[in-house]
Amino acid sequence: MIRHTVAFRLKHARGSAAEGNFLRAACELAKIEGVQKFECLRQTSVKNSFTFGLSMEFADEVAYAFYCDHPEHTAFVQQRWIPEVEEFMELDYVAHAP
Amino acid sequence: MIRHTVAFRLKHARGSAAEGNFLRAACELAKIEGVQKFECLRQTSVKNSFTFGLSMEFADEVAYAFYCDHPEHTAFVQQRWIPEVEEFMELDYVAHAP
Repeated sequence: MIRHTVAFRLKHARGSAAEGNFLRAACELAKIEGVQKFECLRQTSVKNSFTFGLSMEFADEVAYAFYCDHPEHTAFVQQRWIPEVEEFMELDYVAHAP
Repeated sequence: MIRHTVAFRLKHARGSAAEGNFLRAACELAKIEGVQKFECLRQTSVKNSFTFGLSMEFADEVAYAFYCDHPEHTAFVQQRWIPEVEEFMELDYVAHAP
């Protein structure tokens, strides 16, 4: 299992129609084959400047790469993410047994 | 549900005994009352400098505050986290339906 997450802050005003429109478009990514446990999240810690998050899981690197290269994902990045996101950080996780 | 996460990088060498010792001590935090779905994670994205992560969930703000103020947590922060962690970022999430 690979958990792909991204914390981000939009250029749009908090609670604006544009914010909701962006997030609903982001949620469409859940429909891409191989995406599991897709979550739209609000970031609530005051210890960073991000306001939202997305989290999803993939069975393996092949499924993750299929998502990254999928035309619906790349179109979303070009048409929505780059123009509308102010800042972001991607964090990917796998289980670790120390 | 509140998901409390922290991404971090240790001062210890990758794969060292000190690294394992720290992570096993961190896993003991899972035993604090109210901690749910505790996960020890390895951070794998090359787009940031963090190498590990912890994730846990709390039913509500009361349970989260109980954890934060718990003597086993505050002792861990003072005795292990501050001396052994090079850098970290906390991200907290709640579900968001746009």
